[in-house]
Amino acid sequence: MNDVIKDEVIVKNMAGVKNKFMVFSGKGGVGKTTVAVNLAYRIMAKGYKVGLLDIDIHGPNVIKIMGLEKEKLISKNNKIEPIKAFSNMSVISTASILENEDNPVIWRGPLKMKLIRQFLSDVNWGSIDYMIIDSPPGTGDEPLSIAQLMPGLNGGIIVTTPQSIATMDAKKSIRFAQQLKIPFIGVIENMSGFICPHCGERIDIFKTGGGQRIALEMNVEFLGRIPYDNLLMSLSDEGKIYLKDYKNGTAVSEAFNYISNKIIGLG
Amino acid sequence: MNDVIKDEVIVKNMAGVKNKFMVFSGKGGVGKTTVAVNLAYRIMAKGYKVGLLDIDIHGPNVIKIMGLEKEKLISKNNKIEPIKAFSNMSVISTASILENEDNPVIWRGPLKMKLIRQFLSDVNWGSIDYMIIDSPPGTGDEPLSIAQLMPGLNGGIIVTTPQSIATMDAKKSIRFAQQLKIPFIGVIENMSGFICPHCGERIDIFKTGGGQRIALEMNVEFLGRIPYDNLLMSLSDEGKIYLKDYKNGTAVSEAFNYISNKIIGLG
Repeated sequence: MNDVIKDEVIVKNMAGVKNKFMVFSGKGGVGKTTVAVNLAYRIMAKGYKVGLLDIDIHGPNVIKIMGLEKEKLISKNNKIEPIKAFSNMSVISTASILENEDNPVIWRGPLKMKLIRQFLSDVNWGSIDYMIIDSPPGTGDEPLSIAQLMPGLNGGIIVTTPQSIATMDAKKSIRFAQQLKIPFIGVIENMSGFICPHCGERIDIFKTGGGQRIALEMNVEFLGRIPYDNLLMSLSDEGKIYLKDYKNGTAVSEAFNYISNKIIGLG
Repeated sequence: MNDVIKDEVIVKNMAGVKNKFMVFSGKGGVGKTTVAVNLAYRIMAKGYKVGLLDIDIHGPNVIKIMGLEKEKLISKNNKIEPIKAFSNMSVISTASILENEDNPVIWRGPLKMKLIRQFLSDVNWGSIDYMIIDSPPGTGDEPLSIAQLMPGLNGGIIVTTPQSIATMDAKKSIRFAQQLKIPFIGVIENMSGFICPHCGERIDIFKTGGGQRIALEMNVEFLGRIPYDNLLMSLSDEGKIYLKDYKNGTAVSEAFNYISNKIIGLG
């Protein structure tokens, strides 16, 4: 395990990044990436410099959700320059270094760790107030590598939908974070309480309250509930950031406002 | 790579298993496990002996969806006995060998392969007509291990929802299967065309047609479309198999009937 000890090159390269939060989930399809991207955007909109690091090697969707598929990474002075999605937001994703978006990355665990190490040692992150790391679902090599390699990781933010299978998997993610001694652990409940856009009736797809329930049960912080909104999902699918168009006044924007204030307060 | 060559112990142990199909997906949350369990059930209901192998190490939900959480694995004559979910259905899941359902499995790639190898070499599968393997989302160690270790894998069945982010990831899974030379590759479109149970209006959450479109584009078989039904999801969440209660006459049961006939025809 010698090579997983936080090394000096990484510590030096990440010295300008003040706060680091990893967003992960037990189950896929809970809207984790959409939450991570909108959270990063909202923190930036509050006046902070933000970094967004996508370590989902098999399904790197940050780039797609942000409409940045055409941006290529460039290298300067032996460092990789992150994509400037906005003047105060730097983004790095495995998708940017893959040539064809349809190509699967067929890599066994040890290779994944090497790539993640490179993101921490060879990217010119510069000065960042809050870095959000979007991890693939589950408790596999990618979040494990971040927990082991990232100097001064502040916290793990676990995204779950409210139904029982998702919360069961989210509990595993909480225990994972606890076992790895990640200092702060919080839960976000996404897709809470779905309302039919035609008739306004509530559709009990995912139920509600499951995220809060497990946060209480596992003694971690409940960061808040993001209501189900078809628009949040469909804009993501089109490569648009919801909060860019709907800054305030919607249930979704208020939820992100509440949650981002909590996260900023942890920094 | 010598140790990943299909070994004699596995070939001998799997000799009674005639057909093997791996169900996987590019993205999580597309209903893959619910599809795998109901597909296995429908094939069994048509008179075949079925095996269901859950290789999702970080989120093994087959057991939960089938309400088998309390079943413990036993060993007989140095072999592991699978759970008899029904007289003609044998089930093995990583969940059965984990003591606490909340505990995360924090394993790097090489350990996963060892466990999967054990499922193929040390489980007393006996005589099975169709084995369905439920894989975690993505193109990681688990589906890679099956593709490399399983003697005579017939095909890969890729489950996707219709929206663009899911189909983009599904295309990666198709290329993965093609690169690994899995003989048959088919696509199932799940959660197609959501209808509000209150007003009957269609809600464009996931859109429709995306699965068929990519199957055509990538020159693989389109196996069929499973319409969105709240009940399919909520019964799974309660540990009940939809097709056990709704054998015929619903849009969902007809879809499974159609798809299972196609898969049986490939055997």
